[in-house]
Amino acid sequence: MAETYSTYGRIDGPIVIIGFGSIGKGTLPLIERHFDYDASKLTVIEPDPAQATFLRQHQVRHLAERLTPENYREVLGGLFSEGKGFCVNLSVDTSSLDIMRFMRELGVLYIDTVVEPWAGYYFGTSDNADRTNYALRQKVRDEKAAHPGGTTAVSCCGANPGMVSWFVKEALLTLAKDLGNPVEAPQDREGWAKLMQSLGVKGVHIAERDTQARRVPRPRNVFVNTWSVEGFIAEGFQPAELGWGTHETWFPENGYRHETGCMAGIWMDRPGAITRVHTWCPTPGPQFGFIVTHNEAISISDYYTVGPAAEPDFRPTCHYAYHPCDDAILSLHEMFGSGRQQTKHHILTEDEIVEGIDELGVLLYGHDKNALWYGSRLSNDEARDLAPFQNATGLQVTSAVLAGMVWALENPQAGIVETDEMDHARCLEVQRPYLGPVEAHYTDWTPLQDRWDQFPEDIDESDPWQFRNVLAS
Amino acid sequence: MAETYSTYGRIDGPIVIIGFGSIGKGTLPLIERHFDYDASKLTVIEPDPAQATFLRQHQVRHLAERLTPENYREVLGGLFSEGKGFCVNLSVDTSSLDIMRFMRELGVLYIDTVVEPWAGYYFGTSDNADRTNYALRQKVRDEKAAHPGGTTAVSCCGANPGMVSWFVKEALLTLAKDLGNPVEAPQDREGWAKLMQSLGVKGVHIAERDTQARRVPRPRNVFVNTWSVEGFIAEGFQPAELGWGTHETWFPENGYRHETGCMAGIWMDRPGAITRVHTWCPTPGPQFGFIVTHNEAISISDYYTVGPAAEPDFRPTCHYAYHPCDDAILSLHEMFGSGRQQTKHHILTEDEIVEGIDELGVLLYGHDKNALWYGSRLSNDEARDLAPFQNATGLQVTSAVLAGMVWALENPQAGIVETDEMDHARCLEVQRPYLGPVEAHYTDWTPLQDRWDQFPEDIDESDPWQFRNVLAS
Ligand SMILES: NC(=O)c1ccc[n+]([C@@H]2O[C@H](COP(=O)([O-])OP(=O)(O)OC[C@H]3O[C@@H](n4cnc5c(N)ncnc54)[C@H](O)[C@@H]3O)[C@@H](O)[C@H]2O)c1
Ligand SMILES: NC(=O)c1ccc[n+]([C@@H]2O[C@H](COP(=O)([O-])OP(=O)(O)OC[C@H]3O[C@@H](n4cnc5c(N)ncnc54)[C@H](O)[C@@H]3O)[C@@H](O)[C@H]2O)c1
Repeated sequence: MAETYSTYGRIDGPIVIIGFGSIGKGTLPLIERHFDYDASKLTVIEPDPAQATFLRQHQVRHLAERLTPENYREVLGGLFSEGKGFCVNLSVDTSSLDIMRFMRELGVLYIDTVVEPWAGYYFGTSDNADRTNYALRQKVRDEKAAHPGGTTAVSCCGANPGMVSWFVKEALLTLAKDLGNPVEAPQDREGWAKLMQSLGVKGVHIAERDTQARRVPRPRNVFVNTWSVEGFIAEGFQPAELGWGTHETWFPENGYRHETGCMAGIWMDRPGAITRVHTWCPTPGPQFGFIVTHNEAISISDYYTVGPAAEPDFRPTCHYAYHPCDDAILSLHEMFGSGRQQTKHHILTEDEIVEGIDELGVLLYGHDKNALWYGSRLSNDEARDLAPFQNATGLQVTSAVLAGMVWALENPQAGIVETDEMDHARCLEVQRPYLGPVEAHYTDWTPLQDRWDQFPEDIDESDPWQFRNVLAS
Repeated sequence: MAETYSTYGRIDGPIVIIGFGSIGKGTLPLIERHFDYDASKLTVIEPDPAQATFLRQHQVRHLAERLTPENYREVLGGLFSEGKGFCVNLSVDTSSLDIMRFMRELGVLYIDTVVEPWAGYYFGTSDNADRTNYALRQKVRDEKAAHPGGTTAVSCCGANPGMVSWFVKEALLTLAKDLGNPVEAPQDREGWAKLMQSLGVKGVHIAERDTQARRVPRPRNVFVNTWSVEGFIAEGFQPAELGWGTHETWFPENGYRHETGCMAGIWMDRPGAITRVHTWCPTPGPQFGFIVTHNEAISISDYYTVGPAAEPDFRPTCHYAYHPCDDAILSLHEMFGSGRQQTKHHILTEDEIVEGIDELGVLLYGHDKNALWYGSRLSNDEARDLAPFQNATGLQVTSAVLAGMVWALENPQAGIVETDEMDHARCLEVQRPYLGPVEAHYTDWTPLQDRWDQFPEDIDESDPWQFRNVLAS
């Protein structure tokens, strides 16, 4: 039986995909499948010559160019000369803000999956406060504030940041129902924030366990991951960072607040990918995650703030708690242990992976049912059935890009938006077919459980969900 | 061509092997190969019924008994009724001290590879000072002091503790030569200690990298290792511990000294297997190791002390810096992350391992040539050629047991000894055929090299080899 796929509308004008790595390559077939557009006007900008053959064989126009602060206006201006179309930015080392701003000038729809800076920023910036996602995100928020409305530009619409913000909303509605007070979806930010507050949620882990694996021992000096190695290394060396909730009574010794902006986050003077937290996912139960900095940690804490930014009545704690695939665990151990980045990078392909799932959800904690994990448990096997050229991790991201593109097409004058600000129900409707099992799991686990009895720890036994308890010794 | 093996003498009376796990099983063929003895008098005490078939098929008498404080005198007394023979203790959960003491009463030679306590001690003891290897070792040293001489009992004669103490001596002689002042091997402890001091050695890492791997992703909830999982978990949950050198100017915040005994070590109030140090091995170069507590960390610092124990003129820092096989890295991450020990254990067998070596040596640092790694780089492939029923890790241990047995046979009235106190040249002569490449490697690496520039660390830039720099942030 031939599958039939929904077509979500026509994209008028050029489509330009910037970056053809694991995510670009997986997004292309979804665009082909779900949009009506002029194939001769689709271009991929990708400096890596290794992608040229694939693109030629698939008859996709390939611009083997590396975007820079110097050339991006000329290169993109040339491609979008008609002042319409869609710019899909799935690259590393390009400034999301600059490109987004330029697209909005031109009246071209824009989407990305991360607030990425130009090459050199992550390792060339000396002040750690400037290297935070807080700082990167705030610039996009400032741009939105300075230039409200206008052509839609969707910021950070991948799996996380991205889809997980839609999961938070679904999880809140689920929790309201399961606590005996079902509610309609609120219509605005204030409504959502008050809903979270009223449900007694203290915080949210973006709780992910990736169990994808191949049947080859990880080779030494190769950083192996299930998505961008370059992206992961860059964010792993950013400071550990989190949205900081109103229930926190303790403050990390190496922690810093921000003086300006949304005030929703703090950072710690330590690399995120070496900073462990206690967290929980359905498959493993309790596990270590790394508190790698992510846009959504700040955006979710910001979005769900009740009251003034500097002195809120309520704000949830929010952070990533990431257990990457085992080969990435070993790669991190090698990288931090040697003090040197591996020069070889490898992203596990759907064909070499022999087992495993990417279990990616939100763990809403601190309420009367203790904790609720809500998320996608997509296996690589299922991902292969659903769409070509990507593993489970990739499909969770690319299907969020698809959903974001659909929403942008349907809301072309919404200005700059984050995924928290989009219609989560519509987005999940588009994305749902690609997510495998999407499940809600309650757990009675808290970070006070299963500590090592033999050794003293700096914890607060009186309040299980303090970040002090979540942060591993 | 049939191999011919040296026979190192006759063992009169019974041979009893206690424990038939990975090490017991690998030691048996070496005993068969290298000693003359009455096969009908060899007994294996092993409570695990899973070993029964193997032992029956190899026509080895099997006593399926679990030694306890209540039964060990009766069980062993029955087997050694003649008052001669050899007791080879390769078990977990039996008291090395009690069994050693009893064997010496009987006039039976004795060897073990660790100062093991009776079952329940590691997790049932509440005071962490009592759970250190310092405390366990000190009891054996006190027994030696109280009852000098007598029947030989070799304490802690595996790879490490064990062989590495012989490597330290070889490394010192190598270093003396390479520094332009070749020396004869000193004849006593004082001589060796003064040699180390005069060479400017500040400390010693027992620097190990195990790269053995199989072609199967590590299953969840299984602790996978290349030797005793039970032993590794037990020591991993003991406090991090090290011999504390006279060059140290800093003291760890969570560190403790001992009031009594040899005074050579300190411990930290934190599990060793979660406490990382910066170290170096030939294959990976710089890497993380875990400062898992080991007998040799204390014994080596003790042995090489110059001057009074409480106020020495010289003492080296010494500790284990262990990078176990990748599957064990993942097992530790899972165990500490979940706060629960895995119920399934698996020791990788020589037949399923598809690649890798156990690179186990001593890194002597702080001298004029900076650092010298001296050790065995035995591959699993080579181990399989050399002897049956064991991987590379196993063979490094069992060949040390063989060497220790030979030495005990040749020195039957030496009392209680540690490997530092034995004739290292004779022991290595016996062990050498089983160690694969034994190599000396100099390196200019120091723990100040390749730190993460972006983040502050509590280090001493003026003195590279301070433990403060070795301990990872
Ligand atoms: N939000 C999410 O859930 C999520 C998930 C995965 C990846 N991402 C982000 O998506 C982006 C792509 O991820 P990926 O896994 O495909 O990464 P990847 O490393 O596989 O590919 C990135 C591509 O960008 C190209 N590139 C590099 N510099 C460029 C430049 N100056 N101009 C144009 N192209 C350039 C590279 O050649 C490469 O092919 C990354 O920024 C990553 O952080 C987001
Ligand atoms: N010094 C070294 O280099 C070195 C290296 C490896 C192992 N070891 C030590 O050697 C010992 C054996 O290691 P392994 O890898 O063979 O361990 P293993 O876990 O494979 O085997 C231990 C065996 O002891 C048996 N045992 C448990 N309780 C017993 C009891 N009460 N009485 C008799 N037998 C009992 C178990 O059934 C098991 O078969 C451990 O103590 C380990 O720490 C030392």
